[in-house]
Amino acid sequence: MSKTADPVRILGIVGSPRKGNTDLLVREALKSAEAVGNVETELMPIAGLKIHPCVACFRCFDEKTGTRACPSFEDDMEKVYPKLARSDGIIIASPVYFGGITGQLKTLLDRTEPFVRYARTGYGGGLSNKVGGAIAVGYNRNGGQETSIQMIHSYFLVHDMIVVGSGPAETPGCYYGGGAVTHPKRSKVLDAVAGDELGIRSAKGLGEKVARVALMIKKSNREK
Amino acid sequence: MSKTADPVRILGIVGSPRKGNTDLLVREALKSAEAVGNVETELMPIAGLKIHPCVACFRCFDEKTGTRACPSFEDDMEKVYPKLARSDGIIIASPVYFGGITGQLKTLLDRTEPFVRYARTGYGGGLSNKVGGAIAVGYNRNGGQETSIQMIHSYFLVHDMIVVGSGPAETPGCYYGGGAVTHPKRSKVLDAVAGDELGIRSAKGLGEKVARVALMIKKSNREK
Amino acid sequence: MSKTADPVRILGIVGSPRKGNTDLLVREALKSAEAVGNVETELMPIAGLKIHPCVACFRCFDEKTGTRACPSFEDDMEKVYPKLARSDGIIIASPVYFGGITGQLKTLLDRTEPFVRYARTGYGGGLSNKVGGAIAVGYNRNGGQETSIQMIHSYFLVHDMIVVGSGPAETPGCYYGGGAVTHPKRSKVLDAVAGDELGIRSAKGLGEKVARVALMIKKSNREK
Amino acid sequence: MSKTADPVRILGIVGSPRKGNTDLLVREALKSAEAVGNVETELMPIAGLKIHPCVACFRCFDEKTGTRACPSFEDDMEKVYPKLARSDGIIIASPVYFGGITGQLKTLLDRTEPFVRYARTGYGGGLSNKVGGAIAVGYNRNGGQETSIQMIHSYFLVHDMIVVGSGPAETPGCYYGGGAVTHPKRSKVLDAVAGDELGIRSAKGLGEKVARVALMIKKSNREK
Repeated sequence: MSKTADPVRILGIVGSPRKGNTDLLVREALKSAEAVGNVETELMPIAGLKIHPCVACFRCFDEKTGTRACPSFEDDMEKVYPKLARSDGIIIASPVYFGGITGQLKTLLDRTEPFVRYARTGYGGGLSNKVGGAIAVGYNRNGGQETSIQMIHSYFLVHDMIVVGSGPAETPGCYYGGGAVTHPKRSKVLDAVAGDELGIRSAKGLGEKVARVALMIKKSNREK
Repeated sequence: MSKTADPVRILGIVGSPRKGNTDLLVREALKSAEAVGNVETELMPIAGLKIHPCVACFRCFDEKTGTRACPSFEDDMEKVYPKLARSDGIIIASPVYFGGITGQLKTLLDRTEPFVRYARTGYGGGLSNKVGGAIAVGYNRNGGQETSIQMIHSYFLVHDMIVVGSGPAETPGCYYGGGAVTHPKRSKVLDAVAGDELGIRSAKGLGEKVARVALMIKKSNREK
Repeated sequence: MSKTADPVRILGIVGSPRKGNTDLLVREALKSAEAVGNVETELMPIAGLKIHPCVACFRCFDEKTGTRACPSFEDDMEKVYPKLARSDGIIIASPVYFGGITGQLKTLLDRTEPFVRYARTGYGGGLSNKVGGAIAVGYNRNGGQETSIQMIHSYFLVHDMIVVGSGPAETPGCYYGGGAVTHPKRSKVLDAVAGDELGIRSAKGLGEKVARVALMIKKSNREK
Repeated sequence: MSKTADPVRILGIVGSPRKGNTDLLVREALKSAEAVGNVETELMPIAGLKIHPCVACFRCFDEKTGTRACPSFEDDMEKVYPKLARSDGIIIASPVYFGGITGQLKTLLDRTEPFVRYARTGYGGGLSNKVGGAIAVGYNRNGGQETSIQMIHSYFLVHDMIVVGSGPAETPGCYYGGGAVTHPKRSKVLDAVAGDELGIRSAKGLGEKVARVALMIKKSNREK
């Protein structure tokens, strides 16, 4: 095996319209992923991206779309698609809005239709076997973090991805992924989560876990 | 008890960007609700509505917003808020996108922040005790209908609503709500679900159930 | 309407093999339910009950079982069935075992098969329109409380029950039901949850909510 | 790398009290796993096993238990523990009972407490990085298959396992795992699921996926 193995690439998607708590958690997760070694990370905040919602035209199922993934809309998803395609692991994080992920994040995820298994775009099936992990941060303690993480896991499984939780720490706070709380600070405080040691620990655990499993998958594929 | 009791009002939200299968299911649910008697229904497709995503400014928590619910954006939500406020029951329906509801629908739901319990708008706590039911339609048979319904139930519970399923039919197909399938027709076929008897049955059961429980809740409150 | 209206009855099922934290939370929920007025409560710990697991014989679907609900096993479920049947609201609580409710509790719930809608026992459909609420207590902060509550909600909906969360408190800690944490005390400490103010608050909120909605449903039915 | 590499071992747990539909689906999944090559499988029906429910004594957290995993009960779990320990992939299957897995299966899973990360038994942390997949079979079409699979996934993640769905087939029927239906045959028909092509396809897809990912993980670990 080569000593100069390709690094694994972990993409961290920050599904918040603000630059605050979710961003902070994903940064911690990515730092923790890098510390594993041979890992490159990229932070992708969705705030500011212009993304048209999917209109279920299904043209990406039927048309060879050539250089563009989505035949219907030419927008910031053109920058997102290659990032997803080249990643080995994907961390998706969201503030909890009504027990789930943000509309903005769901809108972005919906536009990954060109990656579905029966898409005729060059991206069809392209997320298969990538490693996925989820992070959610809420105002209330048990305020929908778990149900938000579940929603992201559902997304991963529809793309035939591999799902991991927050790793083997003794008391991770949240097993399913990164689970954090802004309370007692108000949600509008952009770094409220900085005081949530447990939440940060679970996000770090998740980042490391995604990296470790992505390394295993990549190594195995290289050896074929 | 008065013979000319106020009817209960059931709002049916069609969370699809298209006018097709989801629309058809909500229409069936609403017809079934009306058949209970003393029920008025309103169909609200979200297709075509212009709704800015919530940016988590939290101004609706802090400011008395007077005649407008959302201090930040003036858009089609202004039409949605009063519909929600005057309803006794709310049916939320979505096509399944990646195991969950559409980004467009989640975006609309996120903008109901002025109804949260601690909002200082006139709408604060305004969905409390309304009766909620969910419908989901997917391409695959067990393709995320249940997880989409769960997501809608989470939304209801965050608003302190009352959640019901598809009623007491012997074999409802789906207990948790309306659960329908477009397969073997392709999802792009706008009336693919017309052939899904079981799915339509569960949507009808849901409509009736929402109506019956909303009538109970309303009657009880009238008697106080 | 009579001044001496029948009280509503709330049954609190403690799904723990021990007499400890879950018990404490259900007691708080029931006290809070009683404080609403015109509410009678009963605590039912499952510890010590001898209950044979359901073996899916389906005899309760096919046979008129007369005075006994389950044709196959005569055990402590004979005491449980009438408690369930006469309740107007049911609170089900569990410690979190591996992200879900205890095997003991699931075993009891499985044996409510004689209440399913197509059972030919006298209990068939008998939980329809009863009001259900869930409580879960875990060691980790986001340690499966929400997923355990979801599991209980699924149970309620299969029985055509009406599901409520933890009520309208400003910061309930958990919206979906009672959500409590034993950490930093160890789970083996039987009153570890006594220090979890937030968890107790959510359990109290749940008890009150179940009572209030059960009163509405009962009152409405009495007026028919 | 050795040409005669160790095979991966996939354990298929049949969580039904009967020998019927669930058994049939797990057999299909395991056959499909074997067809991948270099895979050994073992079917483990839980019917007939004598397993005492976990009583949350937490002795396995505190005591070095030597040759026995559970210090409190000596029963058929003694046969289950080594099977779990030596597996590389674990498929857990259940009939849907009230939207979830059977009490019998949950009881068995609860007794894997000696594998939790902080257990001082020889098995502590022992399921970490094993690959998990879930199968559920219900009577109704959308009758709790997805919520049952979720429950099993929660279990996997608490054990720091790696979760996969039903693989990359174009129309798997169920993405999250094997999802099958006995209807229109009655659930008591032991081979009702034999006619459910879609359900069998998803179970097969799951078996193959668990095998492929388990092979990747094992190969990678061997290369260290």
